[in-house]
Amino acid sequence: MVRGTKLEVYVGSHQAEEIWTLPGQLLWDILESRGHHVKGECGGRGTCGHCWVRVEGEVSPPGPEESRFMLEQGVSPGFRLACHCRVLGPAQVYLSSMELSPFLKAEGRALGFEIAPEVKRISGAVPPRTEEGTETLWERLAQAFPESHLCLTFDNWNRLSTEVSRGEVSLNGVAIGPCLVEVTASSTPRVLGVAVDIGTTSLYAALVDLEDGRRLSVVTRGNPQKTYGADVISRVSRATENRGGLTRLNEVLVAAVNSMIDELTSFHGVSPADVYQVVAVGNPVMLHLFAGLDVRGFGGAPFVGVFRHSWSETASTFGIRIHPRGQVRILPQVGGFVGADVVAGLLTLDLHGRETFLYLDIGTNGEMVLYHKGEWWACSAAAGPAFEGGNISSGMRAEPGAVDRVWVQEDKIQFNVLGEGPPLGFCGSGLIDLVAAMLELGWLNQNGTLSPIQGGPQGSFVLNESAAPELRRVGINQNDIRQLQLAKAAIRTGVDIMLERAGLSVSDLDRVYLAGTFGQYLRPASILRLGLLPPVRPESIIGIGNAAAEGAIMALLSREKQKEADRLARSIRYLELASQPDFQEVFLRSLDFPS
Amino acid sequence: MVRGTKLEVYVGSHQAEEIWTLPGQLLWDILESRGHHVKGECGGRGTCGHCWVRVEGEVSPPGPEESRFMLEQGVSPGFRLACHCRVLGPAQVYLSSMELSPFLKAEGRALGFEIAPEVKRISGAVPPRTEEGTETLWERLAQAFPESHLCLTFDNWNRLSTEVSRGEVSLNGVAIGPCLVEVTASSTPRVLGVAVDIGTTSLYAALVDLEDGRRLSVVTRGNPQKTYGADVISRVSRATENRGGLTRLNEVLVAAVNSMIDELTSFHGVSPADVYQVVAVGNPVMLHLFAGLDVRGFGGAPFVGVFRHSWSETASTFGIRIHPRGQVRILPQVGGFVGADVVAGLLTLDLHGRETFLYLDIGTNGEMVLYHKGEWWACSAAAGPAFEGGNISSGMRAEPGAVDRVWVQEDKIQFNVLGEGPPLGFCGSGLIDLVAAMLELGWLNQNGTLSPIQGGPQGSFVLNESAAPELRRVGINQNDIRQLQLAKAAIRTGVDIMLERAGLSVSDLDRVYLAGTFGQYLRPASILRLGLLPPVRPESIIGIGNAAAEGAIMALLSREKQKEADRLARSIRYLELASQPDFQEVFLRSLDFPS
Repeated sequence: MVRGTKLEVYVGSHQAEEIWTLPGQLLWDILESRGHHVKGECGGRGTCGHCWVRVEGEVSPPGPEESRFMLEQGVSPGFRLACHCRVLGPAQVYLSSMELSPFLKAEGRALGFEIAPEVKRISGAVPPRTEEGTETLWERLAQAFPESHLCLTFDNWNRLSTEVSRGEVSLNGVAIGPCLVEVTASSTPRVLGVAVDIGTTSLYAALVDLEDGRRLSVVTRGNPQKTYGADVISRVSRATENRGGLTRLNEVLVAAVNSMIDELTSFHGVSPADVYQVVAVGNPVMLHLFAGLDVRGFGGAPFVGVFRHSWSETASTFGIRIHPRGQVRILPQVGGFVGADVVAGLLTLDLHGRETFLYLDIGTNGEMVLYHKGEWWACSAAAGPAFEGGNISSGMRAEPGAVDRVWVQEDKIQFNVLGEGPPLGFCGSGLIDLVAAMLELGWLNQNGTLSPIQGGPQGSFVLNESAAPELRRVGINQNDIRQLQLAKAAIRTGVDIMLERAGLSVSDLDRVYLAGTFGQYLRPASILRLGLLPPVRPESIIGIGNAAAEGAIMALLSREKQKEADRLARSIRYLELASQPDFQEVFLRSLDFPS
Repeated sequence: MVRGTKLEVYVGSHQAEEIWTLPGQLLWDILESRGHHVKGECGGRGTCGHCWVRVEGEVSPPGPEESRFMLEQGVSPGFRLACHCRVLGPAQVYLSSMELSPFLKAEGRALGFEIAPEVKRISGAVPPRTEEGTETLWERLAQAFPESHLCLTFDNWNRLSTEVSRGEVSLNGVAIGPCLVEVTASSTPRVLGVAVDIGTTSLYAALVDLEDGRRLSVVTRGNPQKTYGADVISRVSRATENRGGLTRLNEVLVAAVNSMIDELTSFHGVSPADVYQVVAVGNPVMLHLFAGLDVRGFGGAPFVGVFRHSWSETASTFGIRIHPRGQVRILPQVGGFVGADVVAGLLTLDLHGRETFLYLDIGTNGEMVLYHKGEWWACSAAAGPAFEGGNISSGMRAEPGAVDRVWVQEDKIQFNVLGEGPPLGFCGSGLIDLVAAMLELGWLNQNGTLSPIQGGPQGSFVLNESAAPELRRVGINQNDIRQLQLAKAAIRTGVDIMLERAGLSVSDLDRVYLAGTFGQYLRPASILRLGLLPPVRPESIIGIGNAAAEGAIMALLSREKQKEADRLARSIRYLELASQPDFQEVFLRSLDFPS
């Protein structure tokens, strides 16, 4: 039994997340895999000597090469090169401010793009008053900013009225598109934005400097709507069947987002009024609930809501507290349950030279996109909660005590437990690994029936049978396997039908991108052993982390990326799986494990 | 001594105003003079038989011609033809709903114009859902209103989500310019607007039906800022010198306007949410205070504020409670203290066939505009409070007890008192009449010195010397006359300098329009006797009532009139009187009375 160890990541002065990792991993790889991008031109190859981060805790000592970099550059104690430093036990890493290069990634993901956000800082100079002095402040300001509409608050006008003297005055302003929304003579305004990914289970928000693209701070928290139902469907029921349900679901979500913005800005010593745009992504139901819009349409086929396109609206209309003229921009959805989170995730991919790929975001709902030579297909599949440990006898979330990896060594099952205690259950990745291992050992046949030859209780397998009697038994039974079969068949059905519609075979697939935290932890070999995906080369499966959040940040930083999102959403053909004539047939065929 | 009598005017179910009038006047003339326009194609000549209004109180009995109309048309008891009915004593008139023709006026004032407001009711039909039914509500609505931007509130979307079924649905909407701001399937929305005239002393608001142009209700009240100073200059001081002064002056004004809107709408049985636009006029300081904008610029020359042009802004930004997407439009100012009230007043004038005229709005400040062959000049003069009874020993406002008219009959001074009690003082018109009468009788010489030959106290004249000892003595002294000379010289200086700049002489003036309540009551002969105006023909002087409010209503009803206001304001040349080289000379020359 190998133990995971905990790495705490601080961004700015704020703890961004805890990462469970196997001891011995390179800090660069761990951070990179979670979307924390550390400066360094060589891309983690250990040669440029630029990826200094401050580290505390149990890490490997610097080797001779790193020591040479340290000496040469006069680096302070406590700083380490992320690409040389291995995490051996509990440790903390402090990322002071994220660099400009978050999107310069390998493996076909999006390359750099020009930072040209919808929100821009602009400057101008108010001409001195004429001798008669009959020009109003408004007229003088219009001369200073001839290409902008003046959309200042009354308070701002009054501040300017004090600041702008008779002579020439240099001014700094902030514009959202063509609208000048803030002007000051006395300081340089910060121009910040917040990207929000509204997940059914958790919320993510990043504070971003819109001038240099730096990610200043990141915060995540549970979606407070969880009290009203774990999945999208139960939220829809709550909103439509309970009096005031929609209002309540909207209010708790907006309050949570406001509180995250407050936290992000206060940790960074700025004001929510320095935030001019919030770009929000999420699945269609979450986006409707964020706006407080009717979700009745998602209660049944054809699963259509009030809106699908991207739009922008004054933040105060949403109840979001940022700059009084600040805007919320909602990225576009595709259709059904395929939302702006998927579109944003696709924004992070580099399409150049890539002919055919799959993009999967697997959770309670699995959303899938197929790209082939400029054409797009998408569908969503109700996988159910099995992949998140739900409806599984020993299922649990990826928390301390969860078995997150299982493998076969000398014909024996080995496993890793998160944290320092005994195993308490399986999270999704552990469960998939275990079933793959059991298939490998011949303990399960092709149609998912447990062999009766196994020891222990009838019709089940227990991982820690020999543990002390007072400890919980962690195992898997026939019903758990059936649940997993249903879940993986749902995903596989979507993939197969999309491939069929596109006239493609599995060999045409260059890459399979797995988005989301879950995708990040799955072992490609196990996924393939289960037949969750058609038989692609294991090395073509790439975990790309929280691509939805990355894409939202891209859209925040680039008006072009916003437009690209619109084009993308429009060009994706949405397939309603349940209404496909071959759906039943493909689904039944997908239940078995590959031989 | 002749007594005035009181006519109470009710518009809808609401008392709009009390009018003091001389007994024996035609109801048509009284109403017309105060801007209440009664239906009737013949324009009050007594021939069309259409101007029926309900009247109670002391009025003349119907004559044979009116009785014939009554019989022919089967008119209910209590209804009278306004052009036949004379008010003899206290009476009430009920105007149920004002007609479309308010602007069809005689005497060169504006002719009819097309009702084409910025706010419009539009209708559309949502197409039935396609068989797949994958169109969002937004997409269907965009098909129903292809020429509008959809700017609905989230609440409105949710209401529609319930109202719009799968089939074709007819919808009624309201658009402000290109923005669709309200849509409903279940009813026909009212499309109302409010015109507001923000005077330093009093506030006027009219609720207007934007579809047929009817004035539904009118309300006036004192400007609550009076507590903080009687005139514009003291308000400016209060706003700039007292901490929180600007906020306070803004808050009381916005609260008063909201309360007037509530009153107008509740009397008419509609909701403030049925009001989509407020058009506001007033002098520059009042408009700045309405927006809560800095008025420091009006504390000294060159008297320039934050803005001068017309603009539109969401009503909620002003704190004005109408439809959540409703707009406030501020009409443009000219410069100095010449504001949107003057521009609006000019909108009501018919320029066709009129070569040269003066427009005067006389109060504490006198604003003057000269028009000649397509060219415009304007100036304002600080007349001081004498015309409103301020700084005058027996001065008072036009309230019960005020002597409002004075004339000479058989070499003796006659006068009229408002209300039923004894005289308590002079209002402006009475004062001007008295001075004119004293000049006629030779009791004053050309330079304004009181003759010592008069009886009574030294250096003064008492109107009611023979009254009972316990009653207040109402009179005029040398200082009062000096105050009046300063006030009338200020106005005359402005008029003379404008004429001089335009290269005109008094004989070129076709008309002199006197706007405002004060102008309404002045007797042309008295004005001319004092030399307040250059010697024009008395019949060329026309009182046009509250032209500012009329113009605001026009702008509410016509986007073209709004644009005309912009063009007007831009084309008027503003003269800053105090900086004219000949100002002192002309002013001194104007102090004397004409010989």
